[in-house]
Amino acid sequence: MTTNVKPSPRERLLEAAATLTYRGGVGIGVEALCKAAGVSKRSMYQLFDSKDELLAASLEQRTSAYVTALLPAADDGRSPRERILHVFEQVESQSRAPDFYGCPFLAAQIELKDQSHPASRVAHGAKESLTAFFRAEAEHGGASDPDLLARQLSMVFDGASARAGIGADKLTGLIAPTVITLLDAAGMR
Amino acid sequence: MTTNVKPSPRERLLEAAATLTYRGGVGIGVEALCKAAGVSKRSMYQLFDSKDELLAASLEQRTSAYVTALLPAADDGRSPRERILHVFEQVESQSRAPDFYGCPFLAAQIELKDQSHPASRVAHGAKESLTAFFRAEAEHGGASDPDLLARQLSMVFDGASARAGIGADKLTGLIAPTVITLLDAAGMR
Repeated sequence: MTTNVKPSPRERLLEAAATLTYRGGVGIGVEALCKAAGVSKRSMYQLFDSKDELLAASLEQRTSAYVTALLPAADDGRSPRERILHVFEQVESQSRAPDFYGCPFLAAQIELKDQSHPASRVAHGAKESLTAFFRAEAEHGGASDPDLLARQLSMVFDGASARAGIGADKLTGLIAPTVITLLDAAGMR
Repeated sequence: MTTNVKPSPRERLLEAAATLTYRGGVGIGVEALCKAAGVSKRSMYQLFDSKDELLAASLEQRTSAYVTALLPAADDGRSPRERILHVFEQVESQSRAPDFYGCPFLAAQIELKDQSHPASRVAHGAKESLTAFFRAEAEHGGASDPDLLARQLSMVFDGASARAGIGADKLTGLIAPTVITLLDAAGMR
């Protein structure tokens, strides 16, 4: 029965919030979100305390898919160096999509400006998990300063996805040489 | 006479647009802009065709001060390498201000999403001038691939200012080693 596969109002709101804010920014109105989700405002406020909470929940829900799309499998047998490069290959690949506007977690934080906003906190956590991945791989790969390398890679990640998102750079021939230079300088295996 | 130094309605609108959008995003309403500038909506629409045009003009006006604050003097006698490092020292210094939200031209483009928006075009041009500076210095400094180095430095610039702007990194001990590694790899004098 088709009624079994139809997403719930909560799922539709989360999807609408993720999609519309990514395409149009966090300033999207509650009316537009509810209309896109096919949910009444009354129902929305029964499910979420506020639009801010809905935004936070939509980013939270998106986090695991985002991380899965970027990171290599836990035990793929590749070297830490190759596993780090894998992440950047994914960014370059994602950035070729016509509807690519950069990392949604970076964009949300830049748009909200408020680090204490519930959605900023969720986005901050998602980015932290990426930095933590870089740091762990840097340690495994014998980087001279794993913390520095993790910060450098996070900076390159955000710079690359932001610039691709605004159409300032297509990233071709840019990320790999940059990351390899940093990995080499850190003595990464 | 004090009336001589009072900024004009146009100047007040440009200032309000630059300040309020930097602190709160491009979604700021016309009412709030006019209120902050002490200008009626009617007057605003006599001076600017639309809020979009006001945003574009405010970024345009901000461009030269922004570039001046970042770039070294044209003939300061320093090496291309030192002149590039100067830019990054400025970013690190600017990022320590409590009201730092990253590069205003990057933020505007990320928020607007629309590369054809008049303010996006102005912002794109401002960023292009920075990349052009990097490219010219890279050429003067004998970089092996000036275009690649300019793109790398632009990516680091945007990544660094974005991450500082959202509070993800304080940049201390991060930018200089990263830029030096890239300059060394490019064989820059």
